[in-house]
Amino acid sequence: MSERAKVIIIGGGFGGLSAAQALKSAPVDVTLIDRRNYHLFQPLLYQVATGSLSAGEIAAPIRGILGRQENTRVLLGDVDDIDPVAKRVKLADSASFDYDFLIVAAGSQTSYYGHDEWQKWAPGLKSVEEAITLRHKILYAFEVAERMPDAAQRCAWLTFTIIGAGPTGVELSGAIAEIARQTLKHDFRSINPEDAQIILLDASPRVLMAFPEDLAHKAVRSLAKLGVQTRMGAMVHELTRDGISYQSNGSTQTLSTKTVIWAGGVTVSPLAKMLAQRTGAETDRGGRIKVGPDLTIANFPDIFVVGDMALSIDKHGQPLQGVAQVAMQGGAYAAKAIARKVEGKPKPAPFHYFDKGNIAVIGRAAAVANVFGVHLWGLPAWMVWAFIHLAYIVEFQSRLLVFVQWAIQDVTFNRGSRLITGAAPTDFNFNHALAGQNAVEPTVAKKNEPAVA
Amino acid sequence: MSERAKVIIIGGGFGGLSAAQALKSAPVDVTLIDRRNYHLFQPLLYQVATGSLSAGEIAAPIRGILGRQENTRVLLGDVDDIDPVAKRVKLADSASFDYDFLIVAAGSQTSYYGHDEWQKWAPGLKSVEEAITLRHKILYAFEVAERMPDAAQRCAWLTFTIIGAGPTGVELSGAIAEIARQTLKHDFRSINPEDAQIILLDASPRVLMAFPEDLAHKAVRSLAKLGVQTRMGAMVHELTRDGISYQSNGSTQTLSTKTVIWAGGVTVSPLAKMLAQRTGAETDRGGRIKVGPDLTIANFPDIFVVGDMALSIDKHGQPLQGVAQVAMQGGAYAAKAIARKVEGKPKPAPFHYFDKGNIAVIGRAAAVANVFGVHLWGLPAWMVWAFIHLAYIVEFQSRLLVFVQWAIQDVTFNRGSRLITGAAPTDFNFNHALAGQNAVEPTVAKKNEPAVA
Repeated sequence: MSERAKVIIIGGGFGGLSAAQALKSAPVDVTLIDRRNYHLFQPLLYQVATGSLSAGEIAAPIRGILGRQENTRVLLGDVDDIDPVAKRVKLADSASFDYDFLIVAAGSQTSYYGHDEWQKWAPGLKSVEEAITLRHKILYAFEVAERMPDAAQRCAWLTFTIIGAGPTGVELSGAIAEIARQTLKHDFRSINPEDAQIILLDASPRVLMAFPEDLAHKAVRSLAKLGVQTRMGAMVHELTRDGISYQSNGSTQTLSTKTVIWAGGVTVSPLAKMLAQRTGAETDRGGRIKVGPDLTIANFPDIFVVGDMALSIDKHGQPLQGVAQVAMQGGAYAAKAIARKVEGKPKPAPFHYFDKGNIAVIGRAAAVANVFGVHLWGLPAWMVWAFIHLAYIVEFQSRLLVFVQWAIQDVTFNRGSRLITGAAPTDFNFNHALAGQNAVEPTVAKKNEPAVA
Repeated sequence: MSERAKVIIIGGGFGGLSAAQALKSAPVDVTLIDRRNYHLFQPLLYQVATGSLSAGEIAAPIRGILGRQENTRVLLGDVDDIDPVAKRVKLADSASFDYDFLIVAAGSQTSYYGHDEWQKWAPGLKSVEEAITLRHKILYAFEVAERMPDAAQRCAWLTFTIIGAGPTGVELSGAIAEIARQTLKHDFRSINPEDAQIILLDASPRVLMAFPEDLAHKAVRSLAKLGVQTRMGAMVHELTRDGISYQSNGSTQTLSTKTVIWAGGVTVSPLAKMLAQRTGAETDRGGRIKVGPDLTIANFPDIFVVGDMALSIDKHGQPLQGVAQVAMQGGAYAAKAIARKVEGKPKPAPFHYFDKGNIAVIGRAAAVANVFGVHLWGLPAWMVWAFIHLAYIVEFQSRLLVFVQWAIQDVTFNRGSRLITGAAPTDFNFNHALAGQNAVEPTVAKKNEPAVA
């Protein structure tokens, strides 16, 4: 029977999508399976959380991207099980599909390092739903503060704490500071949004550990200019509705803060555990699956793992970071390896990650960047950041929309997408927050006009 | 004590917002209360439901619109009660506020005419959340059909029924037809999205009852060209997970359809009932509150009701329609009446609605319009429609974004915002829909390439 090799790709993120696109002309039948119908441009998700962009502007339907790629089919489904011996993927709806080659690129999710109960008070930022929840929390906090008569409570509602000082935490805290200082400047009558405190906190000794030290210092300075306080070496040990407590220099500090955001860490998709069990693959503490220099699992040369789920060691013996670049290059490599095998060609050279650098944006027109070893900061770094992000957004349409949004916001400071939609976060009820507080009467700017009888 | 008159406006829709803006220079203190933090441009909500626009692109934060209006304050809150004698508004969080003048503009919501159980199977289209639910339903239906082996079931999943042939129903069915015929054309492998059936159904004898008859006929012809079937004189009497049955010409018809959308009718906000009880105001069958020629409730010259909640009789003895134009003009009138009273001037002339006409869009580059009595259709009507809608969108930013989205879609047919996000509608579970169906293996376009061993 003359059948073409079947490639199944699990995940439509950076890794899976780049693998599918790289297989475009290969003599294989590709099936890409994802729980979502869209590819999400995660690096800009913090802008959805902070009301700069709509989710639709940074997400592209996977079918739309791959629709004209004839050898590829997209399936919406939840992968439930993988049988690496029978070479079969089973979905939660009980359908199952055979493969000749499997590329697993299911990505990562927020991790609370064993404190899952914190999720309720400190949502993460890995999905559109989490971004909308964060937006809800951030904007409602100002609304509650506006109506809160009690000064201490009001202060807690105006205190925003971001846990985790990696790029996401830095970007989020900069954006929240800009919301308070610029966007909402004229919007309230009882509070001054500029009184908001934004605190960026991490157990590590400095911000942006993946960046060179001089750039981290520049970042702290830029953050300070925006009004963001950084508290490093702070180990959170309690997190409740009303605030956090943390260990710092051997003493315990407490912080009354109603809005806490978890930018603290990620763990692999639950799929990884199952796959490791089925294949006997080694995993690291974070659950990442160890792959060889060809990105396959030991003893399973037909199973590739790429992106955040993979524990891939570079030539210096260091594990590769869970960033978009690594996933994209890994996906493309896996595709190439499969295409060569199917065409009867020898294996490609071992995977080599080509590190183009790191970049983190800090509010409007400021960023820090390490590009091919060149250190940039301020406006030049921001320009590199804006260019790269616009270039990597998948669809032309989204690129144009994001560009328009940014251009307008740079002039007006307006954030057009600060809608509070959907259900409130589990921990949150506006009426409950204010009930029994004897909420303040509105005080409006008076012009000493004559009164009415 | 020299205090300025207090005006409370309930609702930040077209009526409330236009009232607040018209009070900009009046010597009064304005408080606008809304449950939402944004003003929604409802006429384009169907484009959010059909993936053309993101919600953020047609909504503007109320604080952003009124932030620089110094005599006005915005409150996020749920109005629970109104005491028209003590002149006091009570919120659900137990705060209460005194007024000298009250403008009630709380709008309308979807009505199932006593069949609230239908909501589960046939969501309406009055809020952002409903629009997202509809988008979810519409896009998932194609996804389920793609995986459904049973032909009859597949057909039911590809049948979309819109109940209610007013402007919203016409616009929705045209947009869904375009999704099936254009947007998704290349996206699936097992189904042909063009096989989708789109059925527009109404108990009334023809579509667009508020339009002149010749335009309604043009609309039906435009819809037919897009592949939308219209079934008029059809009275729905059952609606379940699997389809509907309706009475037509004395006989009962059934229709297997998994996606039903309710564009059938609206009722007033629950606030109206409470207000009618408190004031003894007359209401009509739909619960609308009868107002006099000055838009106030009988015996309560300080309470204005405007927009969808008001039963206002025009000079021909006909009740005014619940459309944006009526609400905007009503809100502006109430503001003027209040400003004149506060300034000691005589009452303005009775409210007169200036009817500029009606317009409904039917897919890309087609519409029907009755503008100042001139009947337009096809491209000219569409151009008028696009111009008016862009002109009335509140924010410059949104206007530009919507324009960009439309311009791109007119060229590419791509709908950038077809994300399936949030929880599934209550009636819907993808895995459940397919479980036990022995879902089909993916069939991908074959190129008869050599097989792999």
